[in-house]
Amino acid sequence: MEYLESNARYSKAVVHGDTVYLAGQVAQDAGADIGEQTRQVLAQIDALLAQCGTDKSRIVSALLLLQDMRDLPAVNTVWDAWVVPGRPPARTPMEARLADPRFLVEVQVVAAR
Amino acid sequence: MEYLESNARYSKAVVHGDTVYLAGQVAQDAGADIGEQTRQVLAQIDALLAQCGTDKSRIVSALLLLQDMRDLPAVNTVWDAWVVPGRPPARTPMEARLADPRFLVEVQVVAAR
Amino acid sequence: MEYLESNARYSKAVVHGDTVYLAGQVAQDAGADIGEQTRQVLAQIDALLAQCGTDKSRIVSALLLLQDMRDLPAVNTVWDAWVVPGRPPARTPMEARLADPRFLVEVQVVAAR
Repeated sequence: MEYLESNARYSKAVVHGDTVYLAGQVAQDAGADIGEQTRQVLAQIDALLAQCGTDKSRIVSALLLLQDMRDLPAVNTVWDAWVVPGRPPARTPMEARLADPRFLVEVQVVAAR
Repeated sequence: MEYLESNARYSKAVVHGDTVYLAGQVAQDAGADIGEQTRQVLAQIDALLAQCGTDKSRIVSALLLLQDMRDLPAVNTVWDAWVVPGRPPARTPMEARLADPRFLVEVQVVAAR
Repeated sequence: MEYLESNARYSKAVVHGDTVYLAGQVAQDAGADIGEQTRQVLAQIDALLAQCGTDKSRIVSALLLLQDMRDLPAVNTVWDAWVVPGRPPARTPMEARLADPRFLVEVQVVAAR
Protein backbone atom coordinates (compact mmCIF):
# COMPACT_ATOMS: atom_id res chain seq x y z
CA MET A 1 0.00 0.00 0.00
CA GLU A 2 1.06 3.57 -0.72
CA TYR A 3 -0.17 6.77 0.89
CA LEU A 4 0.34 9.95 -1.13
CA GLU A 5 0.03 13.60 -0.13
CA SER A 6 -0.79 12.66 3.45
CA ASN A 7 -1.22 14.88 6.47
CA ALA A 8 -2.24 13.89 10.00
CA ARG A 9 -5.87 13.50 8.94
CA TYR A 10 -6.08 12.00 5.47
CA SER A 11 -4.23 11.10 2.31
CA LYS A 12 -5.12 12.60 -1.03
CA ALA A 13 -4.48 9.19 -2.61
CA VAL A 14 -4.10 5.63 -1.37
CA VAL A 15 -2.97 2.79 -3.62
CA HIS A 16 -3.89 -0.81 -2.86
CA GLY A 17 -2.78 -3.37 -5.40
CA ASP A 18 -3.93 -2.12 -8.77
CA THR A 19 -6.65 0.16 -7.37
CA VAL A 20 -6.25 3.85 -6.54
CA TYR A 21 -8.58 5.63 -4.11
CA LEU A 22 -8.57 9.44 -4.13
CA ALA A 23 -9.97 11.71 -1.43
CA GLY A 24 -12.77 13.98 -2.64
CA GLN A 25 -11.11 16.89 -4.44
CA VAL A 26 -12.25 20.51 -4.20
CA ALA A 27 -10.98 23.59 -6.04
CA GLN A 28 -7.83 25.42 -4.94
CA ASP A 29 -9.64 28.70 -5.44
CA ALA A 30 -12.84 28.58 -3.39
CA GLY A 31 -13.95 31.93 -4.86
CA ALA A 32 -14.02 30.72 -8.47
CA ASP A 33 -17.24 30.07 -10.39
CA ILE A 34 -18.58 26.58 -10.93
CA GLY A 35 -16.89 26.08 -14.31
CA GLU A 36 -13.47 27.12 -13.02
CA GLN A 37 -13.87 25.12 -9.79
CA THR A 38 -14.71 22.06 -11.88
CA ARG A 39 -11.62 22.61 -14.05
CA GLN A 40 -9.42 22.91 -10.94
CA VAL A 41 -10.91 19.77 -9.38
CA LEU A 42 -10.35 17.71 -12.52
CA ALA A 43 -6.79 19.07 -12.92
CA GLN A 44 -6.02 17.98 -9.34
CA ILE A 45 -7.42 14.54 -10.06
CA ASP A 46 -5.18 14.35 -13.15
CA ALA A 47 -2.15 15.32 -11.05
CA LEU A 48 -2.92 12.82 -8.28
CA LEU A 49 -3.56 9.99 -10.74
CA ALA A 50 -0.23 10.77 -12.41
CA GLN A 51 1.53 10.52 -9.03
CA CYS A 52 -0.10 7.10 -8.63
CA GLY A 53 1.10 5.93 -12.03
CA THR A 54 -2.26 6.05 -13.79
CA ASP A 55 -4.50 8.56 -15.60
CA LYS A 56 -8.08 9.58 -16.30
CA SER A 57 -8.49 6.87 -18.95
CA ARG A 58 -8.56 4.34 -16.11
CA ILE A 59 -11.06 5.87 -13.67
CA VAL A 60 -13.65 3.27 -12.72
CA SER A 61 -16.10 5.32 -10.68
CA ALA A 62 -16.75 8.92 -9.70
CA LEU A 63 -18.95 10.42 -7.00
CA LEU A 64 -19.91 14.00 -7.91
CA LEU A 65 -20.98 16.18 -4.99
CA LEU A 66 -22.62 19.50 -5.83
CA GLN A 67 -23.63 22.22 -3.37
CA ASP A 68 -26.48 23.03 -5.76
CA MET A 69 -27.72 20.49 -8.28
CA ARG A 70 -28.63 23.35 -10.63
CA ASP A 71 -24.88 23.61 -11.29
CA LEU A 72 -24.83 20.14 -12.88
CA PRO A 73 -25.08 21.40 -16.51
CA ALA A 74 -22.06 23.69 -15.96
CA VAL A 75 -20.13 20.83 -14.37
CA ASN A 76 -21.08 18.55 -17.26
CA THR A 77 -19.74 21.00 -19.85
CA VAL A 78 -16.29 20.84 -18.29
CA TRP A 79 -16.58 17.12 -17.46
CA ASP A 80 -17.59 16.11 -20.98
CA ALA A 81 -14.56 17.86 -22.47
CA TRP A 82 -12.26 16.18 -19.93
CA VAL A 83 -13.43 12.58 -19.99
CA VAL A 84 -11.63 10.14 -22.29
CA PRO A 85 -13.90 9.10 -25.20
CA GLY A 86 -14.92 5.45 -24.92
CA ARG A 87 -13.67 5.24 -21.33
CA PRO A 88 -16.02 7.30 -19.15
CA PRO A 89 -16.31 6.15 -15.51
CA ALA A 90 -19.44 4.96 -13.75
CA ARG A 91 -20.68 8.24 -12.29
CA THR A 92 -23.11 9.20 -9.52
CA PRO A 93 -24.01 12.90 -9.05
CA MET A 94 -25.72 14.08 -5.89
CA GLU A 95 -26.36 17.32 -4.03
CA ALA A 96 -24.61 17.69 -0.67
CA ARG A 97 -23.35 20.35 1.66
CA LEU A 98 -19.54 20.23 1.59
CA ALA A 99 -16.97 20.97 4.30
CA ASP A 100 -16.77 24.62 3.21
CA PRO A 101 -19.86 26.25 1.62
CA ARG A 102 -17.66 28.16 -0.85
CA PHE A 103 -16.79 24.87 -2.52
CA LEU A 104 -19.41 24.27 -5.18
CA VAL A 105 -18.28 20.88 -6.40
CA GLU A 106 -16.28 17.95 -5.04
CA VAL A 107 -15.32 14.82 -6.97
CA GLN A 108 -14.17 11.54 -5.45
CA VAL A 109 -12.80 8.88 -7.80
CA VAL A 110 -11.57 5.31 -7.76
CA ALA A 111 -9.20 4.32 -10.56
CA ALA A 112 -7.32 1.33 -11.87
CA ARG A 113 -3.62 1.45 -12.52
CA MET B 1 -11.04 -2.98 -18.26
CA GLU B 2 -14.48 -2.97 -19.83
CA TYR B 3 -16.90 -0.06 -20.20
CA LEU B 4 -20.55 -0.98 -20.66
CA GLU B 5 -23.52 1.12 -21.74
CA SER B 6 -21.32 4.17 -22.19
CA ASN B 7 -22.21 7.55 -23.61
CA ALA B 8 -20.00 10.65 -23.87
CA ARG B 9 -20.40 11.35 -20.13
CA TYR B 10 -20.40 8.11 -18.19
CA SER B 11 -20.66 4.34 -18.33
CA LYS B 12 -23.43 2.47 -16.59
CA ALA B 13 -20.87 -0.20 -15.64
CA VAL B 14 -17.09 -0.45 -15.55
CA VAL B 15 -15.28 -3.74 -14.91
CA HIS B 16 -11.77 -3.78 -13.48
CA GLY B 17 -10.32 -7.21 -12.79
CA ASP B 18 -12.90 -9.07 -10.74
CA THR B 19 -14.68 -5.94 -9.50
CA VAL B 20 -17.68 -4.29 -11.14
CA TYR B 21 -18.58 -0.63 -10.51
CA LEU B 22 -22.06 0.53 -11.51
CA ALA B 23 -23.21 4.12 -11.93
CA GLY B 24 -26.01 5.13 -9.58
CA GLN B 25 -29.23 3.77 -11.06
CA VAL B 26 -32.55 5.61 -11.10
CA ALA B 27 -35.98 4.46 -12.27
CA GLN B 28 -36.94 4.46 -15.96
CA ASP B 29 -40.30 5.92 -15.01
CA ALA B 30 -39.68 9.07 -12.98
CA GLY B 31 -43.40 9.41 -12.28
CA ALA B 32 -43.73 6.07 -10.48
CA ASP B 33 -44.18 5.80 -6.72
CA ILE B 34 -41.31 4.89 -4.42
CA GLY B 35 -42.04 1.14 -4.42
CA GLU B 36 -42.19 0.95 -8.21
CA GLN B 37 -39.11 3.18 -8.62
CA THR B 38 -37.20 0.89 -6.27
CA ARG B 39 -38.29 -2.18 -8.28
CA GLN B 40 -37.14 -0.55 -11.52
CA VAL B 41 -33.79 0.48 -10.01
CA LEU B 42 -33.09 -3.03 -8.73
CA ALA B 43 -34.17 -4.59 -12.05
CA GLN B 44 -31.70 -2.34 -13.87
CA ILE B 45 -28.96 -3.35 -11.46
CA ASP B 46 -29.80 -7.00 -12.16
CA ALA B 47 -29.59 -6.37 -15.91
CA LEU B 48 -26.28 -4.50 -15.70
CA LEU B 49 -24.72 -7.11 -13.42
CA ALA B 50 -25.79 -9.81 -15.89
CA GLN B 51 -24.08 -7.90 -18.70
CA CYS B 52 -20.93 -7.87 -16.54
CA GLY B 53 -21.10 -11.62 -15.95
CA THR B 54 -22.20 -11.48 -12.33
CA ASP B 55 -25.40 -11.14 -10.28
CA LYS B 56 -26.93 -9.74 -7.12
CA SER B 57 -25.53 -12.58 -5.01
CA ARG B 58 -22.10 -10.98 -5.43
CA ILE B 59 -22.78 -7.31 -4.58
CA VAL B 60 -20.25 -6.12 -2.02
CA SER B 61 -21.54 -2.65 -1.20
CA ALA B 62 -24.51 -0.43 -1.95
CA LEU B 63 -25.03 3.31 -1.48
CA LEU B 64 -28.74 4.12 -1.20
CA LEU B 65 -29.67 7.71 -1.99
CA LEU B 66 -33.21 8.80 -1.06
CA GLN B 67 -34.80 12.15 -1.86
CA ASP B 68 -36.74 11.75 1.39
CA MET B 69 -35.53 9.46 4.15
CA ARG B 70 -39.15 8.83 5.15
CA ASP B 71 -39.32 6.61 2.04
CA LEU B 72 -36.77 4.19 3.54
CA PRO B 73 -39.37 1.69 4.87
CA ALA B 74 -40.97 1.46 1.40
CA VAL B 75 -37.55 0.98 -0.19
CA ASN B 76 -36.70 -1.68 2.39
CA THR B 77 -39.83 -3.68 1.61
CA VAL B 78 -38.76 -4.05 -2.01
CA TRP B 79 -35.06 -4.39 -1.12
CA ASP B 80 -35.61 -7.16 1.44
CA ALA B 81 -37.53 -9.25 -1.10
CA TRP B 82 -34.78 -8.75 -3.71
CA VAL B 83 -31.61 -9.37 -1.71
CA VAL B 84 -30.11 -12.87 -1.75
CA PRO B 85 -30.52 -14.54 1.68
CA GLY B 86 -27.17 -14.95 3.41
CA ARG B 87 -25.45 -12.63 0.93
CA PRO B 88 -26.69 -9.09 1.60
CA PRO B 89 -24.22 -6.31 0.69
CA ALA B 90 -22.71 -3.76 3.05
CA ARG B 91 -25.26 -0.95 2.70
CA THR B 92 -25.27 2.78 3.50
CA PRO B 93 -28.56 4.73 3.16
CA MET B 94 -28.55 8.53 3.07
CA GLU B 95 -30.84 11.36 2.06
CA ALA B 96 -29.69 13.45 -0.89
CA ARG B 97 -31.09 15.62 -3.64
CA LEU B 98 -30.67 13.75 -6.92
CA ALA B 99 -30.05 14.99 -10.46
CA ASP B 100 -33.79 15.15 -11.14
CA PRO B 101 -36.19 15.78 -8.21
CA ARG B 102 -38.70 13.30 -9.66
CA PHE B 103 -36.28 10.49 -8.91
CA LEU B 104 -37.02 9.32 -5.39
CA VAL B 105 -34.29 6.72 -5.02
CA GLU B 106 -30.90 6.01 -6.57
CA VAL B 107 -28.70 2.99 -5.83
CA GLN B 108 -25.00 2.69 -6.59
CA VAL B 109 -23.37 -0.70 -6.18
CA VAL B 110 -19.97 -2.36 -6.35
CA ALA B 111 -19.96 -6.09 -7.06
CA ALA B 112 -17.57 -8.98 -7.42
CA ARG B 113 -17.62 -11.20 -10.46
CA MET C 1 -16.47 -13.87 -0.49
CA GLU C 2 -17.41 -13.56 3.17
CA TYR C 3 -20.43 -11.84 4.69
CA LEU C 4 -20.10 -10.80 8.33
CA GLU C 5 -22.71 -9.66 10.83
CA SER C 6 -25.49 -10.11 8.29
CA ASN C 7 -29.21 -9.82 8.76
CA ALA C 8 -31.96 -10.10 6.12
CA ARG C 9 -31.17 -6.62 4.80
CA TYR C 10 -27.44 -6.00 4.86
CA SER C 11 -24.07 -7.15 6.11
CA LYS C 12 -21.92 -5.01 8.34
CA ALA C 13 -18.86 -6.25 6.40
CA VAL C 14 -18.27 -8.02 3.10
CA VAL C 15 -14.86 -9.36 2.11
CA HIS C 16 -13.93 -9.82 -1.55
CA GLY C 17 -10.39 -10.99 -2.20
CA ASP C 18 -8.12 -8.66 -0.28
CA THR C 19 -10.65 -5.84 -0.02
CA VAL C 20 -13.08 -5.28 2.86
CA TYR C 21 -16.27 -3.22 2.44
CA LEU C 22 -18.02 -2.05 5.61
CA ALA C 23 -21.57 -0.74 5.85
CA GLY C 24 -21.81 2.82 7.12
CA GLN C 25 -21.44 2.68 10.90
CA VAL C 26 -23.45 4.77 13.35
CA ALA C 27 -23.16 5.03 17.14
CA GLN C 28 -24.71 2.44 19.46
CA ASP C 29 -25.96 5.24 21.66
CA ALA C 30 -27.99 7.61 19.48
CA GLY C 31 -28.35 10.04 22.39
CA ALA C 32 -24.63 10.65 22.81
CA ASP C 33 -22.94 13.89 21.79
CA ILE C 34 -20.95 14.17 18.58
CA GLY C 35 -17.58 13.34 20.20
CA GLU C 36 -18.90 10.22 21.88
CA GLN C 37 -20.84 9.13 18.77
CA THR C 38 -17.64 9.48 16.74
CA ARG C 39 -15.71 7.38 19.29
CA GLN C 40 -18.38 4.67 19.16
CA VAL C 41 -18.44 4.65 15.34
CA LEU C 42 -14.66 4.32 15.12
CA ALA C 43 -14.63 1.58 17.79
CA GLN C 44 -17.19 -0.39 15.77
CA ILE C 45 -15.07 0.01 12.65
CA ASP C 46 -12.07 -1.30 14.61
CA ALA C 47 -14.09 -4.32 15.77
CA LEU C 48 -15.44 -5.10 12.28
CA LEU C 49 -12.02 -4.75 10.68
CA ALA C 50 -10.60 -7.13 13.30
CA GLN C 51 -13.30 -9.68 12.43
CA CYS C 52 -12.21 -9.35 8.79
CA GLY C 53 -8.56 -9.93 9.67
CA THR C 54 -7.38 -6.38 9.15
CA ASP C 55 -7.16 -3.09 11.07
CA LYS C 56 -7.33 0.68 10.78
CA SER C 57 -3.77 0.89 9.44
CA ARG C 58 -5.10 -0.56 6.19
CA ILE C 59 -8.17 1.59 5.49
CA VAL C 60 -8.02 2.90 1.94
CA SER C 61 -11.00 5.26 1.85
CA ALA C 62 -13.60 6.72 4.19
CA LEU C 63 -16.87 8.50 3.48
CA LEU C 64 -17.85 10.73 6.44
CA LEU C 65 -21.52 11.62 6.65
CA LEU C 66 -22.48 14.37 9.10
CA GLN C 67 -26.01 15.50 9.96
CA ASP C 68 -24.54 18.98 10.45
CA MET C 69 -21.23 19.97 8.88
CA ARG C 70 -20.58 22.31 11.84
CA ASP C 71 -19.80 19.13 13.80
CA LEU C 72 -16.77 18.42 11.57
CA PRO C 73 -14.19 19.96 13.97
CA ALA C 74 -15.47 17.77 16.83
CA VAL C 75 -15.36 14.71 14.59
CA ASN C 76 -11.84 15.62 13.49
CA THR C 77 -10.59 15.82 17.08
CA VAL C 78 -11.57 12.19 17.67
CA TRP C 79 -10.60 11.10 14.14
CA ASP C 80 -7.10 12.62 14.33
CA ALA C 81 -6.35 10.77 17.58
CA TRP C 82 -7.60 7.50 16.06
CA VAL C 83 -5.96 7.46 12.64
CA VAL C 84 -2.63 5.65 12.25
CA PRO C 85 0.21 8.15 11.66
CA GLY C 86 1.56 7.89 8.12
CA ARG C 87 -1.38 5.75 7.00
CA PRO C 88 -4.47 7.99 6.92
CA PRO C 89 -7.15 6.96 4.39
CA ALA C 90 -8.42 8.99 1.47
CA ARG C 91 -11.36 10.77 3.12
CA THR C 92 -14.46 12.58 1.84
CA PRO C 93 -16.68 14.43 4.38
CA MET C 94 -20.17 15.54 3.42
CA GLU C 95 -23.38 16.64 5.11
CA ALA C 96 -26.34 14.30 4.74
CA ARG C 97 -29.53 13.35 6.49
CA LEU C 98 -29.08 9.87 7.93
CA ALA C 99 -31.55 7.04 8.47
CA ASP C 100 -32.30 8.27 12.00
CA PRO C 101 -31.94 12.00 12.78
CA ARG C 102 -30.46 11.22 16.20
CA PHE C 103 -27.38 9.83 14.50
CA LEU C 104 -24.99 12.74 14.05
CA VAL C 105 -22.22 10.96 12.17
CA GLU C 106 -21.88 7.88 9.98
CA VAL C 107 -18.63 6.53 8.55
CA GLN C 108 -18.33 4.07 5.67
CA VAL C 109 -14.90 2.61 4.95
CA VAL C 110 -13.16 0.36 2.46
CA ALA C 111 -10.02 -1.40 3.70
CA ALA C 112 -7.30 -3.70 2.47
CA ARG C 113 -6.48 -6.88 4.28
